[in-house]
Amino acid sequence: MIVECASDMDPRAIQRLVEHLQARGKPVYRIHGPQPVLVCPDDHDLDPQELQTWPGVRRVIPVRHAFQLAARDYRPEGTQIRVGEVLIGGEEPVLIAGPCAVESRSQLLETAYAVREAGAHMLRAGAFKPRTSPYSFQGLGWEGLELLAEVRAETGLPVVTEVMAPEEIPLVAEVADVLQIGARNMQNFSLLKAAGRQPKPVLLKRGMSATIEEWLLAAEYIMAYGNFQVILCERGIRTFERMTRNTLDLNAVPVVKRLSHLPVLVDPSHGTGDAAYVIPMARAAIAAGADGLITEVHIRPQEAWSDGRQSLTPEAFARMVREVRAVARALRELEGDSHRA
Amino acid sequence: MIVECASDMDPRAIQRLVEHLQARGKPVYRIHGPQPVLVCPDDHDLDPQELQTWPGVRRVIPVRHAFQLAARDYRPEGTQIRVGEVLIGGEEPVLIAGPCAVESRSQLLETAYAVREAGAHMLRAGAFKPRTSPYSFQGLGWEGLELLAEVRAETGLPVVTEVMAPEEIPLVAEVADVLQIGARNMQNFSLLKAAGRQPKPVLLKRGMSATIEEWLLAAEYIMAYGNFQVILCERGIRTFERMTRNTLDLNAVPVVKRLSHLPVLVDPSHGTGDAAYVIPMARAAIAAGADGLITEVHIRPQEAWSDGRQSLTPEAFARMVREVRAVARALRELEGDSHRA
Amino acid sequence: MIVECASDMDPRAIQRLVEHLQARGKPVYRIHGPQPVLVCPDDHDLDPQELQTWPGVRRVIPVRHAFQLAARDYRPEGTQIRVGEVLIGGEEPVLIAGPCAVESRSQLLETAYAVREAGAHMLRAGAFKPRTSPYSFQGLGWEGLELLAEVRAETGLPVVTEVMAPEEIPLVAEVADVLQIGARNMQNFSLLKAAGRQPKPVLLKRGMSATIEEWLLAAEYIMAYGNFQVILCERGIRTFERMTRNTLDLNAVPVVKRLSHLPVLVDPSHGTGDAAYVIPMARAAIAAGADGLITEVHIRPQEAWSDGRQSLTPEAFARMVREVRAVARALRELEGDSHRA
Amino acid sequence: MIVECASDMDPRAIQRLVEHLQARGKPVYRIHGPQPVLVCPDDHDLDPQELQTWPGVRRVIPVRHAFQLAARDYRPEGTQIRVGEVLIGGEEPVLIAGPCAVESRSQLLETAYAVREAGAHMLRAGAFKPRTSPYSFQGLGWEGLELLAEVRAETGLPVVTEVMAPEEIPLVAEVADVLQIGARNMQNFSLLKAAGRQPKPVLLKRGMSATIEEWLLAAEYIMAYGNFQVILCERGIRTFERMTRNTLDLNAVPVVKRLSHLPVLVDPSHGTGDAAYVIPMARAAIAAGADGLITEVHIRPQEAWSDGRQSLTPEAFARMVREVRAVARALRELEGDSHRA
Repeated sequence: MIVECASDMDPRAIQRLVEHLQARGKPVYRIHGPQPVLVCPDDHDLDPQELQTWPGVRRVIPVRHAFQLAARDYRPEGTQIRVGEVLIGGEEPVLIAGPCAVESRSQLLETAYAVREAGAHMLRAGAFKPRTSPYSFQGLGWEGLELLAEVRAETGLPVVTEVMAPEEIPLVAEVADVLQIGARNMQNFSLLKAAGRQPKPVLLKRGMSATIEEWLLAAEYIMAYGNFQVILCERGIRTFERMTRNTLDLNAVPVVKRLSHLPVLVDPSHGTGDAAYVIPMARAAIAAGADGLITEVHIRPQEAWSDGRQSLTPEAFARMVREVRAVARALRELEGDSHRA
Repeated sequence: MIVECASDMDPRAIQRLVEHLQARGKPVYRIHGPQPVLVCPDDHDLDPQELQTWPGVRRVIPVRHAFQLAARDYRPEGTQIRVGEVLIGGEEPVLIAGPCAVESRSQLLETAYAVREAGAHMLRAGAFKPRTSPYSFQGLGWEGLELLAEVRAETGLPVVTEVMAPEEIPLVAEVADVLQIGARNMQNFSLLKAAGRQPKPVLLKRGMSATIEEWLLAAEYIMAYGNFQVILCERGIRTFERMTRNTLDLNAVPVVKRLSHLPVLVDPSHGTGDAAYVIPMARAAIAAGADGLITEVHIRPQEAWSDGRQSLTPEAFARMVREVRAVARALRELEGDSHRA
Repeated sequence: MIVECASDMDPRAIQRLVEHLQARGKPVYRIHGPQPVLVCPDDHDLDPQELQTWPGVRRVIPVRHAFQLAARDYRPEGTQIRVGEVLIGGEEPVLIAGPCAVESRSQLLETAYAVREAGAHMLRAGAFKPRTSPYSFQGLGWEGLELLAEVRAETGLPVVTEVMAPEEIPLVAEVADVLQIGARNMQNFSLLKAAGRQPKPVLLKRGMSATIEEWLLAAEYIMAYGNFQVILCERGIRTFERMTRNTLDLNAVPVVKRLSHLPVLVDPSHGTGDAAYVIPMARAAIAAGADGLITEVHIRPQEAWSDGRQSLTPEAFARMVREVRAVARALRELEGDSHRA
Repeated sequence: MIVECASDMDPRAIQRLVEHLQARGKPVYRIHGPQPVLVCPDDHDLDPQELQTWPGVRRVIPVRHAFQLAARDYRPEGTQIRVGEVLIGGEEPVLIAGPCAVESRSQLLETAYAVREAGAHMLRAGAFKPRTSPYSFQGLGWEGLELLAEVRAETGLPVVTEVMAPEEIPLVAEVADVLQIGARNMQNFSLLKAAGRQPKPVLLKRGMSATIEEWLLAAEYIMAYGNFQVILCERGIRTFERMTRNTLDLNAVPVVKRLSHLPVLVDPSHGTGDAAYVIPMARAAIAAGADGLITEVHIRPQEAWSDGRQSLTPEAFARMVREVRAVARALRELEGDSHRA
């Protein structure tokens, strides 16, 4: 159960409410988000209507999931996140594109201009790369971050980049408009808590064997520590199938849309691992109701230092943009028709 | 390697060719399909150009997959299958709909009229039901088949229905326009061979833990026994995720389209197990490039004897038809534009 | 709920009992097994004690699982199956060994003598082989079956061999002491029903993505059609791990032992797919409580027509026998000690 | 390829060797472990014999895996790790036991005495707990660590406890004899690197969907940063099966033993999630060749704050110890016999 308090509710009154709930044997969590919120995850036998009568209590929202703040019940209208002029969770699919890793100034800049030209709203690129082997390219690190800052300034594109450790967050957040938490760190709870204690939006990738419930609980960690700007991103799960690098689980899109108010993006590049499948799966993601896409684009995929096989050329990306927009527009028009009908 | 012979090639000449290949230590399979075809699965060190010079040999097609006749190399233009006036694998998505099981004459007839009205091209319904428990409803059997025959005659809708054992095929094929082989029987090789020896098109569902290669090899069984009219159907694979009954693997659509010439349908009902997710996943399937959909529709889902939870009402199905058609049209127009450009 | 009737209970009295239950809205299944048994899967609100008072009713056993006859509740003491002089489910682990496929008389005979010498109780070998590709060796078929009959007669070893279609059962059962139903056919319900209608014991392999509950329900099919002699066999499930062909799921052994009274064997050959791992996993299977092992042995694994990589040599098999017996003996002695204590 | 240098090899000579390799276009990693080691992961076309002739080079070991230092090729004799008087990777299985979480001084102390009495060599208990939900008990934190220090001093049992973030390592390492990295952090590369830069042995749990290769590469991270004392721990992988919390993958034991020289433990508690299955799977783990077990034990499982369902009572743990020792002894004696023979 979520108890949303007025911004100006007296802290002592909040404290009394907490004690009232605790006296009834309930664990209570106080969230320092946009406004004071209490979460009482184990709420059977609590009476929402009684709590509603407390002065200063704005809303009491019963939630029947393990996740609370991430549940759609909390914000039935859905959450929209603004990054500069980009609106994530709005009507228009958000397109994020760029190389797997920052490799050089020219590579990054050239790609950034190309994806912007093709219609991308934001730039993605990794300075810190989580790699399975310690002997693989680990990213350019702080140098890569500086290049990201420069290219961001030059192109005006907001930047999404991965952060791999709590102590990196402050410096990365100086450059990044959105902090990415990668699939391998989805249950790195230290990192989730640290991301919750800072104000930049967080793009939270689904772990490769995370259930949707675990993913939403990872989002809940970030929210429970005060940051409500969480963007979910489906990127493929691990199954027995070997024709694709991962199994992009588009079912997650309507499931998340029903269970949660958070926006959900799809990464068809990691999801399939093969440039040949990225465009059809990008179209499918939008048709399934995703709020946008994050796609790997490289000016010369065959020369990429990592993930070349799954990277689109700028030309292919431009085609992807046309096709996903056609799908989005067709569904929007249909909705418009049925609203008029 | 596939060696396609002219329809009028002298059987003795074919025999000499077979012996020529066998003399080089190769296994050779003679397929009695639309025209005589030889398959030589282990073809390294064979010279296609030499074989091409044999009189009566029409085409020699090297295939680098374990599956041969099912490989796109064999028919780069794709396979279209005609069922009455319905074309599967053509420009327009094919829509197959109906209840999980035949329950009664009125239930079946009412549903058939409703889905036809909403735009369905074919009727699906099971008379023989594969059920996990011996104590679950096993279908009406032959009585259900008779009802299917009646409703087919009355509505003019071609019928797809499941066949579970080789010995059932002759009688089922008297009623069915398309024989369905279910996920649990995808590697029931006796059934595959029997389905290959008869002329009705076969809808082959992917097994719940079948790799795409195993699925195409199951199709190859049917083709190797002479029936080239195989329709593939993705229906969800088994993963750790529990929010959906299965994980509908839409990645399989572009993968199969690239590897094979066979048409591929998607079953969003079994794929998700929840009516709430059927429409978005139906849209996504078409956007991913599927040739059509097979959807469970029941006039009163909450009263269905099986699979009620995942069945659409006729009204919801009509909405699904509008939405998937909008997606298909948008992508077709875009393609038209790019052809004109 | 299971209602076990006396062998001499009047059929009309049974019929009255059936009608009594049906009148209360319950589905009732009448099993023609060793003695008359009624199964009432949906038993909430039935009173066992009332039914117990019916004349002719021997036992009323409430079962809280979807499977009923396969549940341990039905036979808490466990089921033992006798095959000639071999006791499956007894104190001593049963060892079944032999080649993947019958290849020739000498290959089969030589292997049979070798495994008998090493301590095997039964011979395994396939005449009909379920193969992923139609172009792979499909087994010698009826000729292979004749060789099995000869080698059985010559060595005195009882024979386990796979049956792939209902119509093959009568002839295969003339040779086989135990009919094997393979993993791919675990939910081939026509085959399960046919195996239930004949008297030979059935070795039922777990499907490669079957849950334990589905596996026990497949056993229930065989039992519900009258054959209570079912031997379960764990042979590895499909996961993301690629270092082993399958993931041998030894957890299934204690789970099945707790849930069911049926004996359970383990197949470490298919379970791992690599001869290097067969012996440690065979030891582990026995330590986990399995009733025996079925192991692939070939006189010259590197020349085997199928599954050579996972086949033991006779020498390695002899070592396996020594090691699993040492484990079994150690655990038996410990149990003896604790009984004396 | 691994190039092991003499401890007293001149740093300038090492530098020249590095440059020699780099000049041939090879990436070279210099490991600051027990002695200077160079790793050259991409070694095709390098000549081991030529490198062997360099003064100061002790051994050149070609490794054909992505992991190098973790590969058995590097230490064919196997690695043994000494923790106080306990030898991990020796002849005797190492038994680690204790509660999931530190709950109180008396709970921890009582359990520690009980498991020591039953034969445990080391104590496990979590002060920092990775929990799926932010609203679940997160461990007592630093207070729990202090209790661990006290109980360690009082009982003399070495302690294994989890570390969740790089910055926690120094303080945790003051108390812990072995640092545990949990399944969710197996690819938390910041944590792996930090664990590699300190001297305490690390118990590295397999991630819940990690392939064995990824797991060994995670160990390689720790080793590449200088800490060669890595203990692997199989704890169950995620599959479709729901009767067990995870699927304990005992196949990993012989696979790891073949591929790597590192000792491997098994955690049957998390692996099965049910106390009823812990003892048989513990026996099986030892029979499969594991170097030891880590088992959850609670003085009153039904009152445990977490993981109660999978915790053994001290009595059940004592039985487990007797049974696994019987298995280990039987296999050791057999080996002794065959050595004498």
